[in-house]
Amino acid sequence: MKRLFLTAGILVNCCAWTHDAARWISYPGDYGIWWGNELQSRRLQWGGRLTPFWPLYESYNRVIFRREVSLAADEELEIGADGNATVCWRSPSGFHESSAILGKFTLPKDATEIEIRIQNSERPPSVWVRGKNLVSDSSWKATWTTSADRSEDLPVDSSARFTDPDTPPGLKKFPVERRAAIWTRNTPGGGILADFGEETYGYVRFLDVRGSGAVRVIYAESEAEALAVDLANTRPGALDGWEMVLLNAATETRREIPHGFRYVHVIPADGNVSVGALAMDRETKGLPVRGSFRCSDDEINRIWEVAVRTLELTCREVFIEGVKRDHWVWSGDAVQSFLMNYYVFGDYDGCRDTLWALRGKDPVKVHLNTIMDYTFYWFDAVEKYRLYSGDRHIAAQIYPRLKSLMEFALSRLDSNGRPANRPSDWIFVDWAGEPLHNEGGVVSFEQILLVRALEAAAAIADEVGARNDADNYRSRAAALRGEVVKLWWNPEKGALMHLLKNDGALDGQLTRYANMFGIFYGYFDEHQLKSVIENVMLNDRVMKIQTPYMRFYELEALCAIGRHRDVCEEIKSYWGGMLKLGATSFWELYNPAVQGDEQYAMYGRRFGKSLCHAWGASPVYLLGKYFLGVTPLKPGFAEYEVKPNLGGLRWLEGEVPTPFGTIRVRIDEEKVVVVAGGGKGRLVLPDGRVFDIPAREKVEIAR
Amino acid sequence: MKRLFLTAGILVNCCAWTHDAARWISYPGDYGIWWGNELQSRRLQWGGRLTPFWPLYESYNRVIFRREVSLAADEELEIGADGNATVCWRSPSGFHESSAILGKFTLPKDATEIEIRIQNSERPPSVWVRGKNLVSDSSWKATWTTSADRSEDLPVDSSARFTDPDTPPGLKKFPVERRAAIWTRNTPGGGILADFGEETYGYVRFLDVRGSGAVRVIYAESEAEALAVDLANTRPGALDGWEMVLLNAATETRREIPHGFRYVHVIPADGNVSVGALAMDRETKGLPVRGSFRCSDDEINRIWEVAVRTLELTCREVFIEGVKRDHWVWSGDAVQSFLMNYYVFGDYDGCRDTLWALRGKDPVKVHLNTIMDYTFYWFDAVEKYRLYSGDRHIAAQIYPRLKSLMEFALSRLDSNGRPANRPSDWIFVDWAGEPLHNEGGVVSFEQILLVRALEAAAAIADEVGARNDADNYRSRAAALRGEVVKLWWNPEKGALMHLLKNDGALDGQLTRYANMFGIFYGYFDEHQLKSVIENVMLNDRVMKIQTPYMRFYELEALCAIGRHRDVCEEIKSYWGGMLKLGATSFWELYNPAVQGDEQYAMYGRRFGKSLCHAWGASPVYLLGKYFLGVTPLKPGFAEYEVKPNLGGLRWLEGEVPTPFGTIRVRIDEEKVVVVAGGGKGRLVLPDGRVFDIPAREKVEIAR
Repeated sequence: MKRLFLTAGILVNCCAWTHDAARWISYPGDYGIWWGNELQSRRLQWGGRLTPFWPLYESYNRVIFRREVSLAADEELEIGADGNATVCWRSPSGFHESSAILGKFTLPKDATEIEIRIQNSERPPSVWVRGKNLVSDSSWKATWTTSADRSEDLPVDSSARFTDPDTPPGLKKFPVERRAAIWTRNTPGGGILADFGEETYGYVRFLDVRGSGAVRVIYAESEAEALAVDLANTRPGALDGWEMVLLNAATETRREIPHGFRYVHVIPADGNVSVGALAMDRETKGLPVRGSFRCSDDEINRIWEVAVRTLELTCREVFIEGVKRDHWVWSGDAVQSFLMNYYVFGDYDGCRDTLWALRGKDPVKVHLNTIMDYTFYWFDAVEKYRLYSGDRHIAAQIYPRLKSLMEFALSRLDSNGRPANRPSDWIFVDWAGEPLHNEGGVVSFEQILLVRALEAAAAIADEVGARNDADNYRSRAAALRGEVVKLWWNPEKGALMHLLKNDGALDGQLTRYANMFGIFYGYFDEHQLKSVIENVMLNDRVMKIQTPYMRFYELEALCAIGRHRDVCEEIKSYWGGMLKLGATSFWELYNPAVQGDEQYAMYGRRFGKSLCHAWGASPVYLLGKYFLGVTPLKPGFAEYEVKPNLGGLRWLEGEVPTPFGTIRVRIDEEKVVVVAGGGKGRLVLPDGRVFDIPAREKVEIAR
Repeated sequence: MKRLFLTAGILVNCCAWTHDAARWISYPGDYGIWWGNELQSRRLQWGGRLTPFWPLYESYNRVIFRREVSLAADEELEIGADGNATVCWRSPSGFHESSAILGKFTLPKDATEIEIRIQNSERPPSVWVRGKNLVSDSSWKATWTTSADRSEDLPVDSSARFTDPDTPPGLKKFPVERRAAIWTRNTPGGGILADFGEETYGYVRFLDVRGSGAVRVIYAESEAEALAVDLANTRPGALDGWEMVLLNAATETRREIPHGFRYVHVIPADGNVSVGALAMDRETKGLPVRGSFRCSDDEINRIWEVAVRTLELTCREVFIEGVKRDHWVWSGDAVQSFLMNYYVFGDYDGCRDTLWALRGKDPVKVHLNTIMDYTFYWFDAVEKYRLYSGDRHIAAQIYPRLKSLMEFALSRLDSNGRPANRPSDWIFVDWAGEPLHNEGGVVSFEQILLVRALEAAAAIADEVGARNDADNYRSRAAALRGEVVKLWWNPEKGALMHLLKNDGALDGQLTRYANMFGIFYGYFDEHQLKSVIENVMLNDRVMKIQTPYMRFYELEALCAIGRHRDVCEEIKSYWGGMLKLGATSFWELYNPAVQGDEQYAMYGRRFGKSLCHAWGASPVYLLGKYFLGVTPLKPGFAEYEVKPNLGGLRWLEGEVPTPFGTIRVRIDEEKVVVVAGGGKGRLVLPDGRVFDIPAREKVEIAR
């Protein structure tokens, strides 16, 4: 049915403004928050949907978008709105509300500003505007307050993904692809079990359905879990639980809520229903894999591919930690996904949306995910996001909430200004092999993260011209950083200890955490660095790290001290070990000493472990950043460094995505080749020689 | 299909707690805010839905409900949840998450606290719990933050309306009743026009539909508006506008969004469709009319009935100002609805929900509805709500937001601490016959409202033990009140002037507003009162009031000075005048001097006026409060006064609703009879004699 338009506009050409294609625009961060809520409401556990124990925020219900204009003639606009919208404009004669809400609208040439007021209770209000000269793009501003008050105006969110006037962001679906099971078999009680061959995500399809009634659906990552019906992590519960599905041969044959799994086990529960076969609609974000990596070792190549697949499954609207169990957005996990993503997808929108999903809104009452470390990581992630993406608006958009989060964090410090352990501020650090001594004092790891958070906050404050804040953050950072290598340093151990007790003495526990972060943050002097390498990093008697989560940083620290060969071997042994056990995606935790189905247990639950966990994918980051060796030095790779390292391999090559395209690197024993789509590069060879990399010119250097 | 329950509970009786029936509980105020958004998104104007120009807030997405418990034995609970819920409890052994989400759940006897975590993005998260001893009721508390933090805990909202475990508040529908049109006729272009005989609200039904296609639906309050298609207030616009309805003979024959109207005009617009007849499903809140009024004058009796009908139409989930045009919740209008409602429905839930819808959440960036007077009214309305309803929790629930609203209001005062006129703070006062002098100084009316707001805020602060705040509010109120009768008093005019100019001189405009509010707030001394009565109230040369809105307060002031006869005559002339013009509900504005269809014009639009406007219903308040003479003196009518006044009528009788039932009053020239369902009353006769009114005893006094 055709659209009816109210106002016949007059189309007159005027000065040609430079602009992007028209994009859907929305209040900064609101889609991240909204998508975060959507995903986090889908954690299927214990017979129902388990809700996060931290506060969730809401997107604004009513928003005003506006932009100053300067027209040579009346401008005819096409306007799309996701919500109830009113178009207004200011001109020398005053403020005008339009009589045309949607469709075509003519903005008079004397207009000095256009303003669109919009309300939507279901999705973040968004608008799309296209005229000859004026389009909705990142030059617009948004406020949730009123017309008169300008103090709250912020640059809008806009994304090149959302340009179709008929599809606002909240209604855009991810692409799906039909997949058959690789095998299916019947189980006792009239059930049916299917294996889709690899970890996947999507909508189950029930084929050859006869009759109607309820079935239980068990999503599982291992065959053992699928068959252990009452022990499965997503085990069926009350009918109110959403994994109990009502089927009807005539109508209902697809589960409309997607989930993560490799195996699906369906058991008739109620009524007279049978299912003959299973298929699925696999759903992904549809991100092109813009990065690449190949080397002389096929096992590492396979690891890179499975890591990419792991990341692809967990990088959704916002980045979740695992596809089977949580669907929750955890800061500590997400900031690792960001780093991996910069070397695989370059999905800057996803990083930005996740930063907002984690941060939420004001007031701040608890740490992100209730974890102190997770709050601190976030600041560093904002700065790195700006560095990798080159996003010109993020600083202005996020600074008010960055500042209030820092105010909250600083309000929780002890009387010495250090990150104290308070009952409601969870100090997580890691799932370690023995209990961490996190109580009764201040943990060195937290203090180091706080230093980095303050440094990052100062950089963003600088960017928005908040000089007093920046000075304050920087001086606090400097003072706390000075303390780290003084108060926690044990000269006998030659390392940073874990806990400075409230009585001022050092606790006896030595852990790797602060020491390895101190290395790649560059907080040690030469003498300390040498000591830490010897006494911690290369000392097998110091408690070993079990999670891929902290293994990420441990290997990063090893790269930072040039031990690429060790890292290469570790990747082959640890990630290769999972592959040898048949992993089709990387796990939340891997312990080579544990055998058989015991590998699937965690958190005291037989199948509690996630077998597709974002933090398991770190090789893609390590290989991109430390083997291909590509690092941005200025936002958006305007300047960058390439410092390739073979790490014992015979050759390696690959691409790193950037906002201007990719940077391609190849190194073997004879030469190094680099080709970059833009930016100003600096190639640093292993022998220390340095060369410029001009944009769009092949640089080939003999070794 | 039957429910499956996970946990087989053990039902053991223990101490018999006193409790209400199990009710759905929700975060305080969130349903008010949510319903406010729902209604305010339905303003149909200019071919679309017109969005409020003030900020709208959101209900919390994730809430925690909890209650301390003390059990003699395990307690089996039935739990219902509108959202994703997790049941947890604390016991000496720690904090436990339940493995049963919904259905039956056994709370172990060593539990010291139960906690239900719940998330819902669509509606305010709500839970319903019923055990032998423990039920969800007003004794529970809610927080939107975390488990550990208790500082934000507030008493929940609960209502006797919501006890059905299968129907959470957001899914409960209002009752509907099928109504036929009283006449229907064809109009040019294949249209059809129907008259439903009186102002009404509901869902249009299209009968004898043939074919399929779009029709334009014009909702109108007068036949002239219905026929003036392109000038109708709700005139059709783009197809995106929701009054363009797609009909299909086979399926779509009811408009699923309700609206207010008396006439409906349907015109085929697109496709091959015809409509043979129209009907409607009339929807009301289903409130019993608990108050009553009858007297010796039939015209007044009819006015009372039409006023009740006007109020019934506008008192929905929250109280809107008019059913045709706005659907918006305006503070100045709503606080009048509250007062009328106390004498008709006693719908305390509706008042409470509307208070929250107006207030929204923090931070406060603008005045309520952007109008300064409307912010000030709200404080008085909170205090009066507490007085009429006896709500024991409102003070604790609302104080944090009452305080932050007052902080906002005080932050806008000028350097003398007076309510200055700032560009973004709309000083409305009234739609007056000539321009009000609201600029270039401070308006006496605003200062008087601020005094009352501070007094009310102090009373609520007292209730929650915020002594410093209370003292601060009270001392500010006293100072500002002292200024009113000094700075704005013009001895020559013997009255308060409208504006104190910035240069300290009084502007020459004399208006009734501050003078009449000063009367019923009791801010004048005896000499001033006499002067104001003579020089303003009874002085026809002072600008007359045109709106029923300010007429409400004008008549209240006349009642306060004992001029009931004048009020009686005024009611007959003004409201009786609308009835003579065929009104079936009372209007936004009535000017006897205007003739014919001109009566329907307002705001520069031919049919801009609302003909069913809450503020038009004030006779129900005046007759209940000043003729039946019933006023609460302590919260919930624990103590009250009855001061009946015939006002020139031969007899009058009626009932006033209270939380404990009704208070019945009859007065004629020979005797006064009062019967009250509870409380401690004081009967004050016109001759000054005073009698006690014991609960549930008939008091009959000869005059």
